[in-house]
Amino acid sequence: MGAVTSSSSSSSSPKAVHAPKQDRSRATRQRLLEAAVACLAEHGWAGSTVSVVAERAGVSRGAAQHHFPTREDLFTGAVEYVAEERSAALRALPVQGRAEVVAALVDLYTGPLFRAALQLWVAASNEEQLRPRVTELEARVGRETHRIAVELLGADESRPGARETVQGLLDMARGLGLANLLTDDTARRARVVAQWAALVEEGLG
Amino acid sequence: MGAVTSSSSSSSSPKAVHAPKQDRSRATRQRLLEAAVACLAEHGWAGSTVSVVAERAGVSRGAAQHHFPTREDLFTGAVEYVAEERSAALRALPVQGRAEVVAALVDLYTGPLFRAALQLWVAASNEEQLRPRVTELEARVGRETHRIAVELLGADESRPGARETVQGLLDMARGLGLANLLTDDTARRARVVAQWAALVEEGLG
Repeated sequence: MGAVTSSSSSSSSPKAVHAPKQDRSRATRQRLLEAAVACLAEHGWAGSTVSVVAERAGVSRGAAQHHFPTREDLFTGAVEYVAEERSAALRALPVQGRAEVVAALVDLYTGPLFRAALQLWVAASNEEQLRPRVTELEARVGRETHRIAVELLGADESRPGARETVQGLLDMARGLGLANLLTDDTARRARVVAQWAALVEEGLG
Repeated sequence: MGAVTSSSSSSSSPKAVHAPKQDRSRATRQRLLEAAVACLAEHGWAGSTVSVVAERAGVSRGAAQHHFPTREDLFTGAVEYVAEERSAALRALPVQGRAEVVAALVDLYTGPLFRAALQLWVAASNEEQLRPRVTELEARVGRETHRIAVELLGADESRPGARETVQGLLDMARGLGLANLLTDDTARRARVVAQWAALVEEGLG
């Protein structure tokens, strides 16, 4: 169990021993999840094993397997964890105009999280044992992102076309993420986002 | 060279011998390119080798290597070939309304060609020797698709925002392709496309 159980506490109270242990365990888990996303984004599914991630996180292989029994557990868990972090950060944004919200939503799809998720999607399209896990994860993350987008954009989904306007915007953001995979697409993206923010304004009324 | 040179012609004229040989060579090349795209789409880059493609195409490994000396040559050549086929088919579409054109453009990103290209993009993001080839191919195919889209949509790119409207539409199409990778997204996609066809109409004026 490596980093989780190898160090002993000097405190004599069982409760006091327990608390820092849990903290250490949580910190180890978090380091593994962050290392897993970085690893997927940089090396792809084929180059991402539990051992590689454990080494990158500075955690023993045993500790890694204690937290994540299988490779699928580790990498789907990692993409979900980082997606939740990003969602929380988005929700915490101060109230802004729609153009800023559109830009912030698009930003979700251009960093290491999107790269990692993309590697996982593409691997899942070829690997049967990964596919149901990733399909389910994607549906969950997709619904959550849609909910946040509707809220931040102040979209009234009872209005005809409003729901599809938000969905199409998130599809476009995903496509912009793809366009940024091999080259730095920042300048072009800024112009496209500015124009689409205006079209979203039309679509949401 | 297998399929290209192994059969002999009964004709005594050198010219007559030459022509069917060229035809056979072209047919072999085409079979290899089509098999390569199907293979990439189904098995991903890791599962796509020259041998696997040659077998699928019913061509000897030697013949495959005669046409495509390296694995990179075969797979980038395949994605380019199919992209050109699709472009030609798009250009040949009868003149239609913008909503139909938007739907036809989105269709480009939901079939085996998109799946194959996606596998290649993602592999190129992790493999240095593939990256420059795929980056260059993507830029070329992207420019060509943009040109066709502008033409079919009758977009006046001198009008502010028109160029970015078309670009964003193609980004959205790419994102819709990604959303269709693990599950059949047809019904949702049709609603998104209908709404965004209307917004593109606004954007193009």
